[in-house]
Amino acid sequence: LPDIAYVNGRFCPIEQAVVSIEDRGLQFGDSVYEVMRAYAGQIFALGQHLDRFTRSSRLIHLNADDFLAELPGLLEEALRQSTYGDAILYVQLTRGAAQRSHSIPADILPTRIITVRPMEDSYAAEQAEGVSAVGLQDIRWAHCDIKSTNLLAGVLLKYEARQAGAFEAILFNERGELTEGASSNVFVVIDGVLRTPELSERILAGVTRLRLLELARQDGIPVRSGVLSREDMAGADEVFVASTSIEVIPVVRFDGKPIGSGQPGPITRRLHELYREMARRPAGD
Amino acid sequence: LPDIAYVNGRFCPIEQAVVSIEDRGLQFGDSVYEVMRAYAGQIFALGQHLDRFTRSSRLIHLNADDFLAELPGLLEEALRQSTYGDAILYVQLTRGAAQRSHSIPADILPTRIITVRPMEDSYAAEQAEGVSAVGLQDIRWAHCDIKSTNLLAGVLLKYEARQAGAFEAILFNERGELTEGASSNVFVVIDGVLRTPELSERILAGVTRLRLLELARQDGIPVRSGVLSREDMAGADEVFVASTSIEVIPVVRFDGKPIGSGQPGPITRRLHELYREMARRPAGD
Repeated sequence: LPDIAYVNGRFCPIEQAVVSIEDRGLQFGDSVYEVMRAYAGQIFALGQHLDRFTRSSRLIHLNADDFLAELPGLLEEALRQSTYGDAILYVQLTRGAAQRSHSIPADILPTRIITVRPMEDSYAAEQAEGVSAVGLQDIRWAHCDIKSTNLLAGVLLKYEARQAGAFEAILFNERGELTEGASSNVFVVIDGVLRTPELSERILAGVTRLRLLELARQDGIPVRSGVLSREDMAGADEVFVASTSIEVIPVVRFDGKPIGSGQPGPITRRLHELYREMARRPAGD
Repeated sequence: LPDIAYVNGRFCPIEQAVVSIEDRGLQFGDSVYEVMRAYAGQIFALGQHLDRFTRSSRLIHLNADDFLAELPGLLEEALRQSTYGDAILYVQLTRGAAQRSHSIPADILPTRIITVRPMEDSYAAEQAEGVSAVGLQDIRWAHCDIKSTNLLAGVLLKYEARQAGAFEAILFNERGELTEGASSNVFVVIDGVLRTPELSERILAGVTRLRLLELARQDGIPVRSGVLSREDMAGADEVFVASTSIEVIPVVRFDGKPIGSGQPGPITRRLHELYREMARRPAGD
C-alpha cells in the first residue's frame, strides 16, 4: 500500500525514508510535530494545526517559516500520492543533523518530515463501548503546551495503563489536579456541565479539545474549564478522552470503578456525533 | 577523518549512518544513551557506563541484553577503526522502528547505534579560567535518573544560559533546591567541605560525579551530599560543574556575581588534577 513519506524535498515510500543518526530529533528530542486527520480526502482543522505547529516551533527557537510556507501544498501532494481518503498525516520538524552538543548549532538546516498512513476506524469498538482508565502521577516536563517529540513520559504512562488493563492513563499533577491523558485531553460531565482543565503550560491545547468546546457551546451544553480533582473524576456522571486520532472515547471505568452508569453517557455521545458530522462536512475547516 | 558509526550490525562513516523516520527514538524520544570517553585508546569507566545503560534500559522496559552482550566488543572495534586515541563514544539504543503509536509494539527490534568522534581538548580554556553560570528553574520531567534522549529541556535551558552569556544553566526545583546543570552535575565547596545534591529521580547519577566523590574521599576532602539552595551557591567558596565531556569546569560567576575569589578554587583544581591522572592511568577503569 502506498504509505507515503516526504523528507527534505523528496517523496518516497515510508520504508525508504531515513534521517541521519546525528539528527537532533533522534539525539535530543529537539523537534516538534503535529498529527492531522483527513476525512474523505480533506484535511480537518488544518489551520489550527498549522497555528499550533508555528507556536511550538517558536517556543523551541526553531525557524519553521520555510517549511510552513510549503506545508499545505506538501500535505495535499502527500495525500494525493497516497490515494487515501481517510488518513493520518504526521508532520515533524527537527532542528536538523549536527555533531552532538546540547548547544543549538548556528548553521543547521531543519529536517522536514511528513508521513501519510491510512486511517481505518481503528477505535470503533472503544468509541462504541467505552474504555477503562487509571489515574497516574503526571511525570512529564513543565512545557506540555509545546507539542515536542519528548514523549517518553507518555509512552511509559501508556505502558503502565495498558499493563493495568486500561486504555488510557489519566494524569494528575503534584497538587492532585487533573492535567490530561497520556495522549489525549480529558473531559468530565458533572450535573450536566462539561468540564475540562483550563489551558496552561502543563497541558497541550488540543485541536479536538477546542472543537468540542465550541460544539458544546453551540449545542447549548454548559461548559466550564478549571481545576478538577481525582474525586471529581471518580464521582462524575460522564468522562471521555479526546484527540485527533481517537476523536471521542467514553471512559466508563476509572481506577476499577464504574463512572456514572458504567455506560457511555448522552453528552459524550452527542458531542462525538456533532464532531464527526463537522469533521466529515465538505467545508470541515 | 574516520568518524565511525555502527548501526544495527554495520560499521560505516557517520555521514552515511541513518535510521528510519519511524524510529521511535525520533518520534517519541523512546531511547536511552551513554556518552563515554577514551583516553589514549582506553575507554574510561566502561563498567559504570554499562551499568547505568542497563539501568536506564530497564526503567523504560527496553530489553538491552543482546546489545549489552556485544557492546564492549563493538566499542573496542569502533575505536580501533576510528584510529583515535582520545575520543568521545556515543551509544544509543532506541525502541526501534514501527508505525507510530504511544503503545509499545510487541514485536519490535531495538535500534543499536554507536558513534566515535575525536576528543580534542575542547574545554581547555573553560577548565583553566572558569566560566559563568546562571540559575534557572528546572523544567525537566520527573525521571532524570533515566539517561533518555528526552533532552529538549536541557537544550532550551542551555540556550537560555548561552543567550545570557553563561556557559551553563544551573537548575533549581520548585522548592528552590539545586538539582544539576543542563548537561552536568554541580558541586559546591563551602568551608572546605565538598557538597553536591544527593541522588534522586530528579538527578542523573553522573559517572564523573561518582568518581570525583571517591577521589575527594581518598584525598581527605570532607564530602557531604544533600540539599543546596540558591543562597548556598551564591555564597560558596568554590563551585564547579562536571561531566564525561567537560571533566571539571570551575564556575567563577553565578547570576552575574563572582563565586568566592572569582577565580578557580584550590579544591576544584586539585580534584580535576586527580581526575585527569586517574582517567589517563593505563588501568583507568
